[in-house]
Amino acid sequence: MRLEESFLTLRVRPNDLDSLGHVNNATALEYLEAGRWAWMEQHALRRGGNVIAVTMRIEIDYRREIAPQEVVVRTVLQEPTAEELEDGDAVHYRARFHQQILVDSGRQVAVDAQVQAAFVSAADRSLCSVQDFLATARKPAS
Amino acid sequence: MRLEESFLTLRVRPNDLDSLGHVNNATALEYLEAGRWAWMEQHALRRGGNVIAVTMRIEIDYRREIAPQEVVVRTVLQEPTAEELEDGDAVHYRARFHQQILVDSGRQVAVDAQVQAAFVSAADRSLCSVQDFLATARKPAS
Amino acid sequence: MRLEESFLTLRVRPNDLDSLGHVNNATALEYLEAGRWAWMEQHALRRGGNVIAVTMRIEIDYRREIAPQEVVVRTVLQEPTAEELEDGDAVHYRARFHQQILVDSGRQVAVDAQVQAAFVSAADRSLCSVQDFLATARKPAS
Amino acid sequence: MRLEESFLTLRVRPNDLDSLGHVNNATALEYLEAGRWAWMEQHALRRGGNVIAVTMRIEIDYRREIAPQEVVVRTVLQEPTAEELEDGDAVHYRARFHQQILVDSGRQVAVDAQVQAAFVSAADRSLCSVQDFLATARKPAS
Repeated sequence: MRLEESFLTLRVRPNDLDSLGHVNNATALEYLEAGRWAWMEQHALRRGGNVIAVTMRIEIDYRREIAPQEVVVRTVLQEPTAEELEDGDAVHYRARFHQQILVDSGRQVAVDAQVQAAFVSAADRSLCSVQDFLATARKPAS
Repeated sequence: MRLEESFLTLRVRPNDLDSLGHVNNATALEYLEAGRWAWMEQHALRRGGNVIAVTMRIEIDYRREIAPQEVVVRTVLQEPTAEELEDGDAVHYRARFHQQILVDSGRQVAVDAQVQAAFVSAADRSLCSVQDFLATARKPAS
Repeated sequence: MRLEESFLTLRVRPNDLDSLGHVNNATALEYLEAGRWAWMEQHALRRGGNVIAVTMRIEIDYRREIAPQEVVVRTVLQEPTAEELEDGDAVHYRARFHQQILVDSGRQVAVDAQVQAAFVSAADRSLCSVQDFLATARKPAS
Repeated sequence: MRLEESFLTLRVRPNDLDSLGHVNNATALEYLEAGRWAWMEQHALRRGGNVIAVTMRIEIDYRREIAPQEVVVRTVLQEPTAEELEDGDAVHYRARFHQQILVDSGRQVAVDAQVQAAFVSAADRSLCSVQDFLATARKPAS
């Protein structure tokens, strides 16, 4: 299993802008969430399964103001690594994504973020592992 | 000068909810921004002056899911401290706020965040100090 | 059964503003939806039951720009009327709300809207009547 | 001068969805606004000039629920017509756009809307004509 980085192109919408004409800080988190959905689609992972990803912590650096344009959201799973996921012995309860919002045709990093997620059972909210999540999200929809 | 903590009560709006019926992660940042505006109002600091606060970095922990209800946003300036601001010798270029979103009538912390801001001149985007910002924002509107 | 008008007070949030510093046109619809939820709460009508209200049409007039402040959302059911609802013979498939967003301490109408809703079964999306909706929404949660 | 219809493709973002997993009613207005910006870009009309377009009234019919996908926003100026704009004698104070949100690869109309705009001077909010707006928005940025 390889979990490659994904790239999602989004267009800034008028409502995304603050009163100075730049993308609002909160809206940047919406772009990142859209990026994680695109990452899941790229790996044929379904949402809405029995194991739910819950965002636990976000660290986000705002490096440049984002003017109206097309932006690219880059998403890569950093933790667990591919090697860790292939190692059948270790169970991982947290996933950490590195995400960036790129502007200027992908040449500049406007936003740089670390996003940590945990996983819980939709049924009883009990803690699940990354492996549980991947296994469930890969099942074809019933 | 004392810069006391502020408390803002907000009502969760239907559009704030994600498909699981909880307040969305990005929306929590909107609540925090509303909290910082309330903090400014409490200290008679005007927006729209010649020195602009720019959010540089946010670290946010999501501790509990927020269901539709009234929430309270607590905002306190942690850096520079009151003592540091009174010390005329030191110039500070960053401000750091500690903010929380409280639920369950203020008894539970749902979100805990650190927000760092820098300050720039509206005219030429040159870097300004916290003291520049406070001095400008306190001036009566012309 | 009397279905009185409801009044909901909301605080404008920073993200609600467009680049001119006024509440965005789309955001006004969020305020109206919050107003309809408040109307339901006032009449002890639960959401999430077996019959779902679906917005079919909105006519909205923007009369004044809304600056950051507290606004009041006024919501009244216009159709069917109380008399029509009491008349056991007629079945109504549409509801029409008159809603206003009031500013300046409730003295000025900033937004005036007509909102039409239809009702469908959560199970199979078949059409339901206003009476079906009211009967279901009044049942205590199981 | 011909003012052709414009087509803008937008991707539904996770935050656009309500608790039933469909695009929220208010968010549809955000899509329409993005469509009007795209229409302006297509005709090389700049925003931020001395004459500002102000939305006066929207009539919007929600015909289908919009699931996560790419949608197309179609925007056409209906009033004044091309002939009316070419007629130098008449002055027009209102513009009316017909807009649609198309789903299912453009085959289905999910939202159908009429949007009326008026025009005011940025300097003193005095009423301007459609022709004033077009003349100002076409000027190269100074």
